[in-house]
Amino acid sequence: MTPFMPPLRDVRFVLEELLEHASLSLPGYEELEPELVDAVLDEAARLAGEVWAPLNASGDRQGCRRREDGGVEVPEGFAEAYRAYAEGGWNGIGVAESRGGQGLPEVVASAVQEMLHGANMALGLCPMLTAGAIEALSRHGSEALQARYLPPLVEGRWTGTMNLTEPQAGSDLSQVRTLAVPCPDEEGDHYRLTGQKIFITWGEHEAAENILHLVLARTPDAPEGNKGISLFLVPKFLVNDDGSLGERNDVVCSGLEHKLGIHGSPTCALSFGEREGAIGYLVGEEGRGLNHMFTMMNEARHKVGIQGIGVAERACQQARAYALERVQGRRGGAPCAIAEHLNVKRMLLSMRARTDALRALALSCAAQMDLARHAADETERQSAQARVEVLIPVVKAFSTDQAVEIASLGVQVHGGMGYIEETGAAQLLRDARIAPIYEGTNGIQALDLAGRKLARDGGAAMTALVDEVAGTAEALAASASLRPLGESLAAGIEDLRTAMSLVLAQGADPERGADAVQAYATPFLALTGHVLCAWQLGRSALRAEAALAAGSDDGDFYRAKLAAADHGLRHWLPLGRAQLSSIEAGMASLAALDPATL
Amino acid sequence: MTPFMPPLRDVRFVLEELLEHASLSLPGYEELEPELVDAVLDEAARLAGEVWAPLNASGDRQGCRRREDGGVEVPEGFAEAYRAYAEGGWNGIGVAESRGGQGLPEVVASAVQEMLHGANMALGLCPMLTAGAIEALSRHGSEALQARYLPPLVEGRWTGTMNLTEPQAGSDLSQVRTLAVPCPDEEGDHYRLTGQKIFITWGEHEAAENILHLVLARTPDAPEGNKGISLFLVPKFLVNDDGSLGERNDVVCSGLEHKLGIHGSPTCALSFGEREGAIGYLVGEEGRGLNHMFTMMNEARHKVGIQGIGVAERACQQARAYALERVQGRRGGAPCAIAEHLNVKRMLLSMRARTDALRALALSCAAQMDLARHAADETERQSAQARVEVLIPVVKAFSTDQAVEIASLGVQVHGGMGYIEETGAAQLLRDARIAPIYEGTNGIQALDLAGRKLARDGGAAMTALVDEVAGTAEALAASASLRPLGESLAAGIEDLRTAMSLVLAQGADPERGADAVQAYATPFLALTGHVLCAWQLGRSALRAEAALAAGSDDGDFYRAKLAAADHGLRHWLPLGRAQLSSIEAGMASLAALDPATL
Repeated sequence: MTPFMPPLRDVRFVLEELLEHASLSLPGYEELEPELVDAVLDEAARLAGEVWAPLNASGDRQGCRRREDGGVEVPEGFAEAYRAYAEGGWNGIGVAESRGGQGLPEVVASAVQEMLHGANMALGLCPMLTAGAIEALSRHGSEALQARYLPPLVEGRWTGTMNLTEPQAGSDLSQVRTLAVPCPDEEGDHYRLTGQKIFITWGEHEAAENILHLVLARTPDAPEGNKGISLFLVPKFLVNDDGSLGERNDVVCSGLEHKLGIHGSPTCALSFGEREGAIGYLVGEEGRGLNHMFTMMNEARHKVGIQGIGVAERACQQARAYALERVQGRRGGAPCAIAEHLNVKRMLLSMRARTDALRALALSCAAQMDLARHAADETERQSAQARVEVLIPVVKAFSTDQAVEIASLGVQVHGGMGYIEETGAAQLLRDARIAPIYEGTNGIQALDLAGRKLARDGGAAMTALVDEVAGTAEALAASASLRPLGESLAAGIEDLRTAMSLVLAQGADPERGADAVQAYATPFLALTGHVLCAWQLGRSALRAEAALAAGSDDGDFYRAKLAAADHGLRHWLPLGRAQLSSIEAGMASLAALDPATL
Repeated sequence: MTPFMPPLRDVRFVLEELLEHASLSLPGYEELEPELVDAVLDEAARLAGEVWAPLNASGDRQGCRRREDGGVEVPEGFAEAYRAYAEGGWNGIGVAESRGGQGLPEVVASAVQEMLHGANMALGLCPMLTAGAIEALSRHGSEALQARYLPPLVEGRWTGTMNLTEPQAGSDLSQVRTLAVPCPDEEGDHYRLTGQKIFITWGEHEAAENILHLVLARTPDAPEGNKGISLFLVPKFLVNDDGSLGERNDVVCSGLEHKLGIHGSPTCALSFGEREGAIGYLVGEEGRGLNHMFTMMNEARHKVGIQGIGVAERACQQARAYALERVQGRRGGAPCAIAEHLNVKRMLLSMRARTDALRALALSCAAQMDLARHAADETERQSAQARVEVLIPVVKAFSTDQAVEIASLGVQVHGGMGYIEETGAAQLLRDARIAPIYEGTNGIQALDLAGRKLARDGGAAMTALVDEVAGTAEALAASASLRPLGESLAAGIEDLRTAMSLVLAQGADPERGADAVQAYATPFLALTGHVLCAWQLGRSALRAEAALAAGSDDGDFYRAKLAAADHGLRHWLPLGRAQLSSIEAGMASLAALDPATL
């Protein structure tokens, strides 16, 4: 199996050349030098490549095991690899210094996450969930809760989970039934929870001392629906006043799911309150649980997009290595590696172009997160936040849909060997396949984009974004050699503007607007994703052209970036533009159809 | 898990209404009544639905096991289910009566195969490989070989395999090294084979009394490359003059592959001649092994396309059942099944439209096979054969690529449950994923279409096909309600004609023609597949409109067909048309790229 080489050169290209380290000039980062960022990336690459990546295949093979006592064993080496991560301080790199973290910019933290997920997505899920818990507590927890629970979470000594789903409550969390009853007669300001949660990632394991479950539950007499749901912190082990661990709380893992992929990540059914009720502490306000959850969803969704990119990168590397090594057939009369056959090379280029584009888009979104948090100017912060909120569903859904396709292309490049599990190509496809589903299915992301993010300001934030893309199209058109790329991008922009008008207009219809958004959301997101990715590849082409003109001694790298941009803008973008047809064709036939007759 | 219901109604729609049972009017089928075909389909549906389908999930879970003695155990129930198939006479339905088969038209045999593969693709592979062996022996075997080996193969008492691949010889079979040495000193007219074959489907098992391996091997002093390769019949058990089984031949299963899917199908490494050399009999002429193999590949490739359609059908059924049952969210204020949400319904419609289209295309190809064999008129036979040869790579590659996408959409419709193996949706994706790889990768199919089938007659066969598609576009345009579908199809036809001209012209370039074909083959095949599928959906819409106008009492069925056609022609076809851009954008950037720099 091809060893995973964290994509340092590509990441640096995005951070330094496309984003020009803009985050480092923000208030609060004055002392952060590019050299330090470099050193962080180097160290992260070492951890990802040398410690995490070698466990990816064995973790997949072994999977997780639930003992009869309810304890869960993760694959060999995972606990140690997790501890190496925690002890290296990686868990806190994106957490504010005031919370005990290193407070590095999100764009750097995201680059690190991508390398870790590319190395081992199943293991990467553990700190990803912890980050969500840190976020929830930091934003909504009382000072007392924060004081007791945040430090060990930030240090990575404890891990966190998100307990949302129940058998009857998946995409529709208003159906949550887990009950949280206040206990005025008991000492301490807590509730007792009873209920069943499913699909809880890293819900039980022994790689850390304690696990903090963040749980959506309903209080007694709470109103039906969303407004009756609150958020609770339920520790696996109760925590004494001095921070030491006390009794085991009344929450147990009642089963592990048998999944298509991410076998190294224990996906648990958790049972709360089988005995006397699990002790839980209210986070934020009663009845605001879903809001509290959603305020941190943006970041979680961004991280899922990053996961997809990590796996896509690994698929690129593995397919390239196999195709360069595997000799079949002839070219110009001589035996050659299959990578030399243009139809195989086309697959490799397509994989690379898409992965590059998705990475640049996701990291540019992270840079906007940095702006939204740290820009000195309030207007700048607000406009960055609006940009982030438009980008997030695209980064989540488009990156993950594409990651599945990229991983599947990776299997195809391997031919028959790709179907054999030992090669590792199939694992990447299996692992990637969860990302379009969790943290809000990609259908939900599309509704978020077409129904909320586009519509809420009448398209203003999205128009501002598209105007910026148009600037890149103009810059490309001004270059003799890149003009065809600029023309292609300009055509994509026109299509996207048309689609925006159609979706806005039809979505505003009081009677049929909701249906229109449902019908058009997925093609609209796909079109948006294609145009934004093409934008990033266009920017990349401009940088590459400039570097080559300046006589860069890394010519191969920049020439490959030009080839990727050519592929992305002139071969791949047209597929996305075709999504407009679907919106223009309308929804009459779909709306009238009885799905039971299909 | 949703029980599989063989798609009898949909199959009948294609056979009766789209193909108008044309095969039944051919010479040789005079006595075959539609009622008999119906009865055959009913019985096949019973076998598929009641006997084969219930073993699909358990077969996947159990997989196959190789014992230390080299014997291979297939999953529980598979041997019995195979015998029920053989004893029912199903193995011979497509085999000529003169060979002991039932000699039913290919179009009927294909419909039966689709149901069986939809029920259990892993098990379906066993008779699929046997059919290839029957074909090889029937076309190229001596009378003596045929007399001894064909009857038990046709009866299904023995099964067959195809031994092509070796570790260094995959897509490039000229690299085969297995050696076959004639034995003039030994009794009988045989060779002794030594070598290693891999990826041998159903290469060892005990579900049948004997296994006949058809093996590509090289004779001593044979020329290098393709012309040194011959085809041999190597029985697992040698066969006595009276047809009884004799000694075990010197071929053993040395290992089983651990695959992404089709776990119930044993994929074997076979070792020939570990002791004294495996006894094998020459099939056809020395040095013509690859030709002999390729003459039967058309049919094998058609069958792989059919496999994809079977799995796609099952994915449609399963997603529909889940989406109709799963209640999440609200519509018009009331809780509703997710199938009612337009973005989910859109996925179901897309799955159904594609599956319908692929089935109609594959069965129309089978009907052309019947014409090519049985038409009274030689010109008609030849033109049908030319049509078949154009269609085959499209049926194989496009059906299987789409089947993977359809199965993946099926996972997505299930949300989180789709990622859990118990649901069965993930198995369909895992199983389907082999079909774009084996029997010639889809890249090879694309080269076959763009490089051989298109070019060899200057585009004549393909132009004749496209002209027929244009007739359907005109018929659609002549209908008030279907006019937009006709316009869309006409636009697709224009694009395909442009693509044909470009590929023909650039492919003919003596210097760069081979590269051009390589660069454009995959988008060209995808464009062709979309247009041909749209054609079938257009024909289906015309029939549905007529049936509804005639006051059919099956209105729901025909309305769903109209919705599928609207989706296919106006929402799906534009995605295929966009492939033309890739051909128009040229290959300069791809050709110049060094793949090692990606």
